[in-house]
Formats: sequence, structure tokens, C-alpha cells
Amino acid sequence: MENGDAFDPNCPTRLILDRIGDKWSVLVVLSLREGPRRFTELRDAIGGVTPKVLTQTLRAMEHDGLLTREVFAEVPPRVEYTLTPLGQSLHAPIRSVTEWAERNVHAVLAARAAHAG
Amino acid sequence: MENGDAFDPNCPTRLILDRIGDKWSVLVVLSLREGPRRFTELRDAIGGVTPKVLTQTLRAMEHDGLLTREVFAEVPPRVEYTLTPLGQSLHAPIRSVTEWAERNVHAVLAARAAHAG
Repeated sequence: MENGDAFDPNCPTRLILDRIGDKWSVLVVLSLREGPRRFTELRDAIGGVTPKVLTQTLRAMEHDGLLTREVFAEVPPRVEYTLTPLGQSLHAPIRSVTEWAERNVHAVLAARAAHAG
Repeated sequence: MENGDAFDPNCPTRLILDRIGDKWSVLVVLSLREGPRRFTELRDAIGGVTPKVLTQTLRAMEHDGLLTREVFAEVPPRVEYTLTPLGQSLHAPIRSVTEWAERNVHAVLAARAAHAG
């Protein structure tokens, strides 16, 4: 099948750009890079995310085929999230954007301050 | 200065991730890669974006130091947008994410269809 085209308004590539551009999705991909994690581990690793938003993010990513959710019949039940190969393939592109943001945060803040002044 | 940390909820890196993860910002960066463009050229190149949203996107990107807006005193006035070096440096990371989306759009849609079934 042909690749998508982000410049075509009718191409679903744009919907996917929105999804993978979301900062919580970005942080989930980075957090699951090393292997499966439980919900509480993800919540603690990411920080500042509400359980509701994290649940929504994980469900959307599961529907998009980026991760799997596995429930282990223990007491209390253990739920683990794991990146699929598709999700793993997203790590490098996302890492490059995140590194850009981390490297240039001061430059962006300086520009904002200059425009506010 | 130290780099930011996307995993720190108090670090502005997260705000920047939201901004550069926005699909309109992504398409503007890609559209300006080859050189300055006018508003109407950008609108036509991107497609499907309303003038209001494109204006808001360009203004936010200008405030973040990613592009400059130059007005030429002609009749009618000509307004051109140009990536700054900071904005140019964002091209490669954004391109890698967009290419991932274009390459994997069918895999994501197949996963969505499977979950809907």
C-alpha cells in the first residue's frame, strides 16, 4: 500500500500525527522503551498526569496498535503495558523530537520572554 | 544552562512538546523548509487549515522564536514567514515523526479497525 501524505487534508496521517504528537503519548513511549510496566509505574514515571488521562492515553495507544495491555490473574490483579513492534518503531522519531525540546527549552523561553517584553 | 527534562512535570519542556507536537506547527515547519512563504501560500500548501487557526499557529511559532514575520510595504502589503535557525533545527526531528506517520498509517488504521470489530 502507498504511504500516507501529511499534506493531504483527507489523509488519516494527520489524525495519527495528532495522536503521536500528544505529550502523554510521547512520554508513554519513552517510559515503555525498557520493557513492560504497570499502570502505577507509568503514572509515577511520567508524573503530573492524572489517572484518568493516563488511562485514556493508554487505551488510545492500545487501539492504535502501539502497545498491548495484559491482565494477570493475581490478587490484586496485575496489569502490564508493553510496546508492540509498531510502538517500538516510534521510539527513535519521538526521542529526536523530545531531545530537541529538552535541548532548546531555554531558547524557546527566551524568545517568549522577548515577545512578552 | 542545563537541558530540560520531559519527565519533570515542572519543566517547561512539556509545554514545548505540546506546541511542536501540534500537527499545524509540524506542517508549517515542513512547508517553510525551502524558504520564505506568504500566508496564502502556506494556507494553500497545508490545506484544510482555517485562516484563523493558521494565524494562531504562526503567531505562537513566532513567539517561540521558530519563525519570523516580515511585512513589505507594497500594495497590497506582502507578509512573509521565514524559519529562524531554531525553527530550521526542528525540521529533521519533525520530519522523522511525519515520515513514521506516513509510513505506518495503514498499520495504525488496521489496528483501529481490529479493535472496533
